[in-house]
Parts: sequence; C-alpha cells; structure tokens
Amino acid sequence: MTTTLEVMNALKKVMDPELHRSVVELNMVRDLVIDDDGNVSFTLALTIPECPLRDQLERDARAAVLGLPGIQDVRITLDAMTEEERLAVLGGRDQTPLASGHNQIGRVIAVMSGKGGVGKSLVTGLLATALKRAGYRVGILDADITGPSIPKLFGVHGPLKGGETGIEPAQSRTGVKLISINFLLPDEGEAVIWRGPLISSAIKQFWSDVLWGTLDYLLVDLPPGTSDAALTVMQSLPINGILMVTTPQSLANMVVRKAVRMAQAVNVPILGVIENMAGFVAPDTGKRYDIFGPSHSTEMAEQSGTSILARLPIDPHISAHCDAGEIEMIMMAEVDKCVDVLVQKQIESA
Amino acid sequence: MTTTLEVMNALKKVMDPELHRSVVELNMVRDLVIDDDGNVSFTLALTIPECPLRDQLERDARAAVLGLPGIQDVRITLDAMTEEERLAVLGGRDQTPLASGHNQIGRVIAVMSGKGGVGKSLVTGLLATALKRAGYRVGILDADITGPSIPKLFGVHGPLKGGETGIEPAQSRTGVKLISINFLLPDEGEAVIWRGPLISSAIKQFWSDVLWGTLDYLLVDLPPGTSDAALTVMQSLPINGILMVTTPQSLANMVVRKAVRMAQAVNVPILGVIENMAGFVAPDTGKRYDIFGPSHSTEMAEQSGTSILARLPIDPHISAHCDAGEIEMIMMAEVDKCVDVLVQKQIESA
Repeated sequence: MTTTLEVMNALKKVMDPELHRSVVELNMVRDLVIDDDGNVSFTLALTIPECPLRDQLERDARAAVLGLPGIQDVRITLDAMTEEERLAVLGGRDQTPLASGHNQIGRVIAVMSGKGGVGKSLVTGLLATALKRAGYRVGILDADITGPSIPKLFGVHGPLKGGETGIEPAQSRTGVKLISINFLLPDEGEAVIWRGPLISSAIKQFWSDVLWGTLDYLLVDLPPGTSDAALTVMQSLPINGILMVTTPQSLANMVVRKAVRMAQAVNVPILGVIENMAGFVAPDTGKRYDIFGPSHSTEMAEQSGTSILARLPIDPHISAHCDAGEIEMIMMAEVDKCVDVLVQKQIESA
Repeated sequence: MTTTLEVMNALKKVMDPELHRSVVELNMVRDLVIDDDGNVSFTLALTIPECPLRDQLERDARAAVLGLPGIQDVRITLDAMTEEERLAVLGGRDQTPLASGHNQIGRVIAVMSGKGGVGKSLVTGLLATALKRAGYRVGILDADITGPSIPKLFGVHGPLKGGETGIEPAQSRTGVKLISINFLLPDEGEAVIWRGPLISSAIKQFWSDVLWGTLDYLLVDLPPGTSDAALTVMQSLPINGILMVTTPQSLANMVVRKAVRMAQAVNVPILGVIENMAGFVAPDTGKRYDIFGPSHSTEMAEQSGTSILARLPIDPHISAHCDAGEIEMIMMAEVDKCVDVLVQKQIESA
C-alpha cells in the first residue's frame, strides 16, 4: 500500500510557480489520509484564499498523487493559511536549520539601491569597518551572487572551512565576518550563470547554513535590481531596516526610487539614504567639482519620506584602497556619523 | 475518450526547470499515441541525452497525463534532440511569432558588463545615436526590466500604441526606435518586483511582439549580472556580438571578467571593450585626474582575448545632457570611432 511518506514525496514535486518552493516545503499539505482502497484525501492550504494559481496547484497536486502506484482517487479540499502561518512560511522566521540554530544575530540591515555601481558594496564595507572599530561584532552577507565585490574590497579569499553544523565564514583583518559566493568558487573570475531560483537558494543558505555565531550587526549587500535576490532577502531574512545608496544623478535617483517603492511594498523600514560620489575634490587645488552634475538626492529622499544620512565624496585614495583590498584602512567622519545614527535608531527601537 | 489535444494540454504544464518552458513548447513531445483502452505512449526528446533532469521530467510528464480522466497507463520513451533541433528550440531562431514575422533586423548587438553602474545604458545610447547619425536604422531594446535607464536618457515617455500584430516602439527625437518596460508602467517610478521567469518573458516579448520594422542595428541594453536577463538574451535572441563596458577600477574588471566568461560559455563573440569613466578632465584647468585610480582595463581585455575599442572620459556635460534626456546632443569622436569598428566588423563577417 502507498504510504503517507510516498504521497508527501510525490507532493514535494508540486511547486508553487510564484514562490519556487514545493507545496510541502510551504506547509500547504494538511490532514492527509489514505484509506485501504487507495483513496487519498488532504487539504491544500493556499497562502491567500484568492490565489490565482489555485486551479493549477490543485491539478498538479492531483496529478502527482495519481501518478503513484495503487492510488484510486484523490480528494483535495482547498483552504487558506492564517496570517500567522503565511508569515511563518513566507518570512522564513520560523525556520531553524542547522547553523542558524547556533547563531545570535542582533540587527540585520540590508544595503540596497536598485541601481548598480552606485557604491553599495563600498558603503557596506565602510559601515562594517566603522561598526567593528566602534566595538560591535559585525558580519557581511554578500547577496550579490553574480557580481560579488565584498571579498575584493577586504582582500579576503576562499576557500572556507565547513563543519558538521555549517560553513565557517571568512574573517577580515579587523575581524569582520564575511560570506560571499566568491569564497566558494574554484576561481574568483568564474561566472555564476544561474537563474533566479538558484540565486535565491544561495542567499538563503548564506543566512541559514553559515556559522555566524553572535553578531551585533549583519549587513546584507544586495545586488542591483528588484528581482529575485532583493525579494528573497526581504521575504526570507528578518531584515530590520534598509539603507539606500544613491549617486547625485537624476537617472540614478529614478531607479533608486523604484527600490524605495519595493521596500515600502514589502513593508521593510528605510533607515535613510547615503549619497555616494558626491563631488570630486581635486587633491592638488582643493577645488570641488560636481562631476556627475548637481545632486538630485535630497529631492529623492524627501519624496520617499526619508532623509540623507551621509554624503561620501569621490576620492582616488578610496579607489586605491579598495583595489588593494584595504577598505579597512579608510576612515571617514561621514561614515562614523552614519554609525552613530544606526546605533541611535536601534536604541530607540529597543 | 481522451484526445491528443487534451494530453498535449496536460503536458503543457510540465516545465523544464532549467529553461522555464514547457516540454510542449520546447518540442520535446513526439509520436504521441492513445489507444482505445486509454493507454498513452510518446517519446520525450531531451535537449541533451545526459540531461540531469531526465528522471524528473519523465515523472512529471507521466503524472500530468495520468491526471487526465480515462487514462490507464503511460509509456514514455526517452530520446535526445539532434543538434539542429536543439539550436532551433534554444536559440529561438525558428520562432516566427506575430510581430517578429514583420521585422527585418540586420545585426543584434548586446551591451553588457556584469557590473552595474559602469555606463552600459550611456554607451548603448551614444552608439545608437552615432549609428543613426551615420545613416543607419537603429533600435534599442532595454532589457533592464528592474532598472531601465534608456527612456530617461532619451527623454521619451510612454504609453505606447499597440496594433493587432504587435506593439509600436517609441521613437526618439532623431528617430531611434526604443522599447523599455518604463513605457508600459502607469508611473515611471513604479518598481517592477518580478522574479526571473517574468523578467525573461518580458524580454522575449520585446523581441517578438514589437513592430521594429526594418533595422540595420538593434542594440540590447542588458542589466547587471549573469542571471536570468543575460541568459535569456543570449539564449533566445539571435545576438551577433557583445560589447563589454567597464570602468578603470580593478574591482569592476573582476566582475566584468565574469561576464566575459559567460559570453564565452554560451559562445557569443565579444566585439570589444569600452572603458567608461576613464579619468576626469577639470574644465577650468584642463588637468586630468584618474579619479577612480589607474586603469586595469587593458589588462582585463587582454586576458579575455579582446581589445579596448574606446575610452570615454567623465564629463559633467555628459551627465547634464543625460539628466535632461538629451543624450542625442552629445557628440564624441571616440564613439564615432567605435561605430566605424562595428560597421567594419559587419562588412568583414558578411
């Protein structure tokens, strides 16, 4: 006779096309009963009652079970999850896989922009360094799977050590814990040609399978865009807030505004905006040039209901340190100011 | 009795998890026979014989057909496509959907970098403008769905007109045809929070459902990364070559090298590298500053077996024109030189 386990295994193949996770993993299958005549009945609890995919999910689930030997009939009752169940499943907050059971992470802050090349990784690295210098325990989760910059900025290379319970993160010279896909590639120049679902599962593993230990702050460096990586971070990690990075250009601000809309749509608070590449000061004459034109960031921040936390200038010394893997040598008063604001916000929210 | 059509419809739900297209759309299902007793047999021609997903595909296909009423048994023979069939299906070169049947497109060139914010859209816009000025018929397909920059650079807004056979692209002041997701959004600041499969299908529609008409050149502006958008463009569009954009920084070059590897992996020729933000010349003193440090691009190009076609400096006037939607006002000898190389390469390959 077909067992419950066999039916559940068959249902593991039925994927929710939106969430790219199986109905079993999403905890949708309930009250499974198989009688002696090979009749199967169960409830399929949808994430939302008006789920547009209900018909497809029901059909796929039915077909999967009917494909098993000895099954005569399948009766599926459609139901919807409670709000709590939905959050537990989609927010991933109730997951306790191996490594994450050992971790104690204070605040998780995502660094985002929507636009590429505005300096998300630079800002992430500078903030982590400044937080570390101020005495906090800090980690960086590099969620940019196809274009990781964090290892290069810190001059840290793989491979990583893995234990029974999870992966040991790398450590920077000053003790910032780092995880990035580049530590796991045989050659750092290798391309990661993955579609969205693989990108998402890599990011989730960086959260759940890495032995972060006890951290006061985990910074998540997001790739450009508002697609899989950003969605996964916002839906599967317990993000406390987002820092938006922009440049003075109006074009950048248009795209960053899209990222702001996304954060608002998924209800993650924006802690503030950091403007990068805010003018260039010629080292010989001290004269300041707005090389990317006048700034449109204040306007963007105001329209988005947030504020500018810091403006970082262009400085050839910064690029030189970054290219040499020595981001931890850079000290900037503007970044320290930012750290004060973050710490203050945490105290207020505690 | 169950009809062939019903079986094919059921099989349309069986997706290839790698390609995100159904086994029917991929032309995998052949020799379908249904006998009077409800026994179904067919051949499943896999894209490659050693397909790691063969078991899953077979199981899913079986379950889908067994889910139909009146089906007693399913017999599936596994087979593999010929190289030609595989190319026809994966390369999309044999598709002739509605609009694309009316289109005559000479050369399709993708502008890529892997890294964000290096100026892919700027380069795409400048090249299109220069090609147009030289007398060619030019279009731009903005494949950056979550961070589109092309409309802003050209100062062009939606909505677009649609006809029975397809969507009319927008036209810039000088007559460059443009398609971008921003023309289709009710509000340009709106975020497109889509996972990979939706991103891919939008890009495919920009190719197949847009009335491009006759074009000498279609430039495809890719988003950062080597995930869904880049994969879809390289696998579903008949790309003739790729232009890589980089900046002087070693960090950027590391990520761009990944994009080069991807292009090599999918066998699309790289036409050359364009270095953007190559130094800043102070408008008052004429002195040149390497504001992002010394250039590492020549080294990267050589390692990648390609060469630098042009180096574009940072110029506040460029940013000002871009922010004002007047990219077509910018004239640069370096860009014209690039156009000459592209045209020359086309003549050589003809």
